[in-house]
Amino acid sequence: MKSLTHENACQQILQNVHRHITLDQNEKEIFCSKLSFRKVKNREVLQKAGENCMFSYFVTKGCLHGFQTDQNGFEHVLNFAPTDYWISDLYSLISGKPAVINIEATTSSEVIILSRKDQEDLYLEVPKFERFFRVILEKSLVHFQQRILDNLRLNAEERYERFCEKYPQLVGTLAQKQIASYIGVTPEFFSKMRTRMLRRS
Amino acid sequence: MKSLTHENACQQILQNVHRHITLDQNEKEIFCSKLSFRKVKNREVLQKAGENCMFSYFVTKGCLHGFQTDQNGFEHVLNFAPTDYWISDLYSLISGKPAVINIEATTSSEVIILSRKDQEDLYLEVPKFERFFRVILEKSLVHFQQRILDNLRLNAEERYERFCEKYPQLVGTLAQKQIASYIGVTPEFFSKMRTRMLRRS
Repeated sequence: MKSLTHENACQQILQNVHRHITLDQNEKEIFCSKLSFRKVKNREVLQKAGENCMFSYFVTKGCLHGFQTDQNGFEHVLNFAPTDYWISDLYSLISGKPAVINIEATTSSEVIILSRKDQEDLYLEVPKFERFFRVILEKSLVHFQQRILDNLRLNAEERYERFCEKYPQLVGTLAQKQIASYIGVTPEFFSKMRTRMLRRS
Repeated sequence: MKSLTHENACQQILQNVHRHITLDQNEKEIFCSKLSFRKVKNREVLQKAGENCMFSYFVTKGCLHGFQTDQNGFEHVLNFAPTDYWISDLYSLISGKPAVINIEATTSSEVIILSRKDQEDLYLEVPKFERFFRVILEKSLVHFQQRILDNLRLNAEERYERFCEKYPQLVGTLAQKQIASYIGVTPEFFSKMRTRMLRRS
């Protein structure tokens, strides 16, 4: 028998799914039967770069983030996944090649896990999920396109403002270091910039 | 009656579609009935930022590119779409809000046009296209994610090498200014960098 927590997590993800497609009872059960549920500790690693990525994660509580580490050990954050976001190493997931990003818990979190195999089966058993993930991917693509353009044409202060618009729920909770790593500046530069911005406001 | 050129263009896009889904004769006809065909002059503008985007473009010959212009008039290239690539302002297409990028012919080109309305109808009439565009979006997303990470952690020379890997067919044909704009440096910097790289090799 599933735990109450698992039931709650299923309800939460179904609410999210129903924003884009409508499932009947049987389809809901097929979908939920493929999900597993996990609590994740702060800074726990769910995916290591270099290892094959086998799972997509849907965050029901807390936050995960995807990042790469450069040769100097500096972390570059690709994306944050707060509550109700999906995260995975899509490159590895679709190519079967080793992952290029690490996925780590930004804070203690709870996640729903969908394996690559179950996701492929889901497309065949409930083809509506093609539509669901097509819509999710469209939204992600728009976000990443905007981020590329922001990185090309905005300065660090403007990129920080964009971050605050995109992730308002994270502004007060993340370490400055993590935000600095997302907007592409050193923690020292970020700290000085924030002081400058606060003084002006 | 359709022209021979239209027939050829349909054959080309169907070959591309068949890499990911299989269509029967009826489905092929539904799909092709929704496509229109256009020759585009070098530097012709297909989409202006600020105007609603109503179309997706599939390039059958030549190349288009998407870009933003900053307040100093400097162009920032988001992406190139050579033969067999799709391009659109996805943000505007899915939100109905004004486009944030311009789409222009990089060189004289031939394109297939699919309107937003026809694309939505297509999903309902031939649901397999949900899968097709889901797969296309996955590939685009992986590319854009990698570009964000490259922009965060690679220097200009390394970003140019990535460009050459991604678009080998464009390296010898694009103006240096266009490549500079894609990798995020001024044409002057790009020219000096290329000279330095050539001297070393």
